[in-house]
Amino acid sequence: MANTILGETQEEEDEILPRKDYESLDYDRCINDPYLEVLETMDNKKGRRYEAVKWMMVFAIGVCTGLVGLFVDFFVRLFSQLKFGVVQTSVEECSQKGCLALSLLELLGFNLTFVFLASLLVLIEPVAAGSGIPEIKCYLNGVKVPGIVRLRTLLCKVFGVLFSVAGGLFVGKEGPMIHSGAVVGAGLPQFQSISLRKIQFNFPYFRSDRDKRDFVSAGAAAGVAAAFGAPIGGTLFSLEEGSSFWNQGLTWKVLFCSMSATFTLNFFRSGIQFGSWGSFQLPGLLNFGEFKCSDSDKKCHLWTAMDLGFFVVMGVIGGLLGATFNCLNKRLAKYRMRNVHPKPKLVRVLESLLVSLVTTVVVFMASMVLGECRQMSSSSQIGNDSFQLQVTSEDVNSSIKTFFCPNETYNDMATLFFNPQESAILQLFHQDGTFSPVTLALFFALYFLLACWTYGTSVPSGLFVPSLLCGAAFGRLVANVLKSYIGLGHIYSGTFALIGAAAFLGGVVRMTISLTVILIESTNEITYGLPIMITLMVAKWTGDFFNKGIYDIHVGLRGVPLLEWETEVEMDKGQPEVTRGPGGLWKRASVGQDKRGHGESGLWTVSWSGLQSASQPRLSYAEMAEDYPRYPDIHDLDLTLLNPRMIVDVTPYMNPSPFTVSPNTHVSQVFNLFRTMGLRHLPVVNAVGEIVGIITRHNLTFEFLHARLRQHYQTI
Amino acid sequence: MANTILGETQEEEDEILPRKDYESLDYDRCINDPYLEVLETMDNKKGRRYEAVKWMMVFAIGVCTGLVGLFVDFFVRLFSQLKFGVVQTSVEECSQKGCLALSLLELLGFNLTFVFLASLLVLIEPVAAGSGIPEIKCYLNGVKVPGIVRLRTLLCKVFGVLFSVAGGLFVGKEGPMIHSGAVVGAGLPQFQSISLRKIQFNFPYFRSDRDKRDFVSAGAAAGVAAAFGAPIGGTLFSLEEGSSFWNQGLTWKVLFCSMSATFTLNFFRSGIQFGSWGSFQLPGLLNFGEFKCSDSDKKCHLWTAMDLGFFVVMGVIGGLLGATFNCLNKRLAKYRMRNVHPKPKLVRVLESLLVSLVTTVVVFMASMVLGECRQMSSSSQIGNDSFQLQVTSEDVNSSIKTFFCPNETYNDMATLFFNPQESAILQLFHQDGTFSPVTLALFFALYFLLACWTYGTSVPSGLFVPSLLCGAAFGRLVANVLKSYIGLGHIYSGTFALIGAAAFLGGVVRMTISLTVILIESTNEITYGLPIMITLMVAKWTGDFFNKGIYDIHVGLRGVPLLEWETEVEMDKGQPEVTRGPGGLWKRASVGQDKRGHGESGLWTVSWSGLQSASQPRLSYAEMAEDYPRYPDIHDLDLTLLNPRMIVDVTPYMNPSPFTVSPNTHVSQVFNLFRTMGLRHLPVVNAVGEIVGIITRHNLTFEFLHARLRQHYQTI
Repeated sequence: MANTILGETQEEEDEILPRKDYESLDYDRCINDPYLEVLETMDNKKGRRYEAVKWMMVFAIGVCTGLVGLFVDFFVRLFSQLKFGVVQTSVEECSQKGCLALSLLELLGFNLTFVFLASLLVLIEPVAAGSGIPEIKCYLNGVKVPGIVRLRTLLCKVFGVLFSVAGGLFVGKEGPMIHSGAVVGAGLPQFQSISLRKIQFNFPYFRSDRDKRDFVSAGAAAGVAAAFGAPIGGTLFSLEEGSSFWNQGLTWKVLFCSMSATFTLNFFRSGIQFGSWGSFQLPGLLNFGEFKCSDSDKKCHLWTAMDLGFFVVMGVIGGLLGATFNCLNKRLAKYRMRNVHPKPKLVRVLESLLVSLVTTVVVFMASMVLGECRQMSSSSQIGNDSFQLQVTSEDVNSSIKTFFCPNETYNDMATLFFNPQESAILQLFHQDGTFSPVTLALFFALYFLLACWTYGTSVPSGLFVPSLLCGAAFGRLVANVLKSYIGLGHIYSGTFALIGAAAFLGGVVRMTISLTVILIESTNEITYGLPIMITLMVAKWTGDFFNKGIYDIHVGLRGVPLLEWETEVEMDKGQPEVTRGPGGLWKRASVGQDKRGHGESGLWTVSWSGLQSASQPRLSYAEMAEDYPRYPDIHDLDLTLLNPRMIVDVTPYMNPSPFTVSPNTHVSQVFNLFRTMGLRHLPVVNAVGEIVGIITRHNLTFEFLHARLRQHYQTI
Repeated sequence: MANTILGETQEEEDEILPRKDYESLDYDRCINDPYLEVLETMDNKKGRRYEAVKWMMVFAIGVCTGLVGLFVDFFVRLFSQLKFGVVQTSVEECSQKGCLALSLLELLGFNLTFVFLASLLVLIEPVAAGSGIPEIKCYLNGVKVPGIVRLRTLLCKVFGVLFSVAGGLFVGKEGPMIHSGAVVGAGLPQFQSISLRKIQFNFPYFRSDRDKRDFVSAGAAAGVAAAFGAPIGGTLFSLEEGSSFWNQGLTWKVLFCSMSATFTLNFFRSGIQFGSWGSFQLPGLLNFGEFKCSDSDKKCHLWTAMDLGFFVVMGVIGGLLGATFNCLNKRLAKYRMRNVHPKPKLVRVLESLLVSLVTTVVVFMASMVLGECRQMSSSSQIGNDSFQLQVTSEDVNSSIKTFFCPNETYNDMATLFFNPQESAILQLFHQDGTFSPVTLALFFALYFLLACWTYGTSVPSGLFVPSLLCGAAFGRLVANVLKSYIGLGHIYSGTFALIGAAAFLGGVVRMTISLTVILIESTNEITYGLPIMITLMVAKWTGDFFNKGIYDIHVGLRGVPLLEWETEVEMDKGQPEVTRGPGGLWKRASVGQDKRGHGESGLWTVSWSGLQSASQPRLSYAEMAEDYPRYPDIHDLDLTLLNPRMIVDVTPYMNPSPFTVSPNTHVSQVFNLFRTMGLRHLPVVNAVGEIVGIITRHNLTFEFLHARLRQHYQTI
């Protein structure tokens, strides 16, 4: 009902159903005969060694992810400095000579080149487009999406995001960092495993979906940690999205991995940028600087209990804005799916270039024409009493732009638009000098529309930084209005900008606990915990009234069968439908059933790798794992050479004790078991031990369950 | 093998086996007929209302826990100020007049009175003794420990800890805060539920083990949050100990609850102590103050990459010290179990008084005799540029003691001993003035021994603050040695004190991710993440080589069947043993089996509440839940009045779809399922659907599994 307000009807929502061709990861351990052989040779000492290797692995993943972040950051910084340096000099010269068109052309030249390169890289590997968070969400949720954790994807993503950010598009590098971390996590232990086997370890390490997913969790967390300097937030991100059972051992490893990533990045950036090797001053790619009252003002508080009321209202508005953003972006994405994707790939490149062109012109024109000259505040240095503070303060001051403005004044629009986005965020958070409300409103509107258009074009493009910047402008606007027109002099503008950023970001992405913690860690100020959390809660609830979060929307558009957190109350009316009869997993399970028919043992299931091994002589676990993760297709097996009457015994490769449920188990129970244990398939067994069907991920998606619920009501 | 180093042999370790009389909580939802009736009346709207009530509940729990913390803090502060005020005046007068014995008597009077009161309160409710963390650990692990979440326990705990801290014992109020929070969590929703039912909500809220445990999680988290100003750490504590499946909805509620607690406490303390209502400056009961280089020293870093090496070594030493502490305390606890507990209860009070007497005398004598007069450093104010900083700095300066020392110097031992423990910690973290190495070593040794003796006497007594103080002294000692004797001038003493505190605390309690986050949040400095984490890791690993964490030791001594995080590798050799034959759950399940024998449905299990209802007319869910959590005992049912031939139909109350496993399921799988789903019992079903036994918590404790493993090797 609420959906219609933003112009979406139920039919449109249901347009795209989950596709049936996505496979699930299998997090469950299959303790079959080959695995038992491995198990027999294991003792606690070997277990500890295995554990030690895991710790080394997560450390290596953290360090590599940190280095990837360093690489991206270094080159983005280099290219941006080059670009802004050249153009700014040109603008300053031309504003006297009247050759501003030339400056614009220079800027266009830089931006279009960079965006073209980014776009080309995405042509090579289409999965590298976008932020990558939807893909990682799918993977951690247990869906195999082809190609997302490949090395080629990593390379295209890293170089692509570098160029798209340097190209002045309204995109962030944080989402792609998370994706990159995940790829590093998936790849590194596999590579190591091969080299380790050469030096004669006697069991293959980490060659299963279970281990791989654990490492991908660690890698994704490391990505968040490197992006935001938020190791705890990163860990919680992995847990929130991965959401298997709370495995404490794993969680600790993930936190360690995140810490390694943050501090690797921190170590090298501090060294390279400040020459003070061994000190740690720049935690993440994105820093919010230090929120701090000026020393002289004893009455100043960052926030007071009274402000919480405003924050709630800002949360509501942020939720509404986020919902609008998502709605517009969804329509755009659907339009692209219908009109851009079927056409030759060049069209995608042209679209990216068009976006770049428009963005560049808007940035340039707005800076030149729409800005207002504001008095440079004398207290514009925020404080200079510590090294870290100085960094922020220098950053803030150097990024103030004075185009077309007389002495002692600056151009507020240019200061926002004509800077890297991170600098603009710092300006809004920390600059004491005011921004005119008109400027802020215009900036917000232009940025909102352009960012919305940009997300979904075929370049690697994060959404965090644009959302934060957009929201910060909104928050700063609120602070300005409250200060100037309502006369609330005591409020701290920076806090309002931060809360605005949180509200808008929360309204767009709808993440909960991990986003809260990421933002708290980015501000490095625990006292912001409550306002940030309340704002995010309100923004999420408001937004959820209208549509889903942007990542879920894009996952949905791709038809990935994602499992939600938990079932809705109504779904529990009745038992889940199972896939019955021959076909699919049922067939395989029936092999086991024949076995059982002979009275030998219980219910067995067998995996593809098992089936493929069955036509060959008895394999060891190592031999079975060798081909992971790309087993030969069952249709490629050449069975014509074999005796057609030969009986293939798959028993040794079957799982002798899969989890099962009875036919009268309720949806919520099945859902819980399936999701928590990370299952790929769940046999349904009746009272006398006969298999009556198989439940897979597809029987448990919300789209499927909703459809059944409608049937349920119709039959009543 | 390593155990023998600290004098423990395998036999001693296994002395106390888990007792069989502990019941498990049942986290699994039993979807029987009465529940189905409730379910039928549910729709998504009602589901949302239910959800809203839950949010209100967790908010209320947070606020109440915060208020409890406020109460404890206020009175501890009041009593301590009174005590130290009187005694200090007396000492200052008497040091001239030579009547120091009188001062000692005054101090003794205060301390013995307070400790006597604390001890009396524990006599009323013995469960209120100790820190309460072991009890909460058990509850969150799924064991019902009688009396731990009762209102009476809360009252005794709160007043008891107030007196034991004010009485100068070497105990903390943080552990008891966590326990208090858990009790609030368990009690508040139950109380509300009764009043809500009066205003005609049509289903009883939260009257199940499942809901109660969720709220206890939230309450315990709120307790941590209030104690340390660490809402995220609190949430992770609950997850680490509760460790059911990662339920994101719950996690977010828990975080909100923690935030509410922190900010309630913060709001009132800021208001009461500084008169600035509405500002938020004092996050938790225990604050570490702000770690900060002095403004003038540009070369100063809190820590550098090189220091990490020292931190690792300190971690090892901390682990060793912690293991020693635990070993001594375990022996003491066993001694108490044999020699103190069987005697009249008065003996326990006398022991507490003895501890108090010795502690007081040591504190007094050490301050008077063993201190050294050190030059007051001119830069002893740590910075005065913000309000919050001033607070710390005033705290630090006002707690410097100058007993028996000439002008411009202070008595370092008195500064440590003759202050509340929190002030002493702040001294060690932030005081620029040096402490003599001899003083630090003596302080550490005395404190270590007394704290070890104190933990386990019958007063409410937390262990965090004593461990932190002890460790901080150790860390400061290391810094002193490095600075003075090795000549490493660049190191920051406060950081070393912090790392020492982390190392020792980690060595004692062996918590992982939650402790890391708690310490990071307490310092409010993300950059300490890596050193803290590395130190804790090393300390835990070192300590684990010798014995378990102190909480686990005390859980073990009580014979509580706690389930570990995960199984060891070797345990997977073979299937778990099941409880067979008549008796226990098997009997109950057999009722269901008869039913199944008639070919009607699958396997059913029935709970106590169901069995008790069976002899009465058909009950609704509300009626069944009414008596929760204390159902009448089955032996109390008067069946003599009924027709002995009457057949009781328990089918409506049975769980129609319990989780089951097949007999050849491996230990690790069973363990995972049982622990993750929070089960109370797990039927084992063979290939043709017959029940062959029941697995309960007792079949899965490590003690039981180890015993089986030994059998396994003997039979081979």
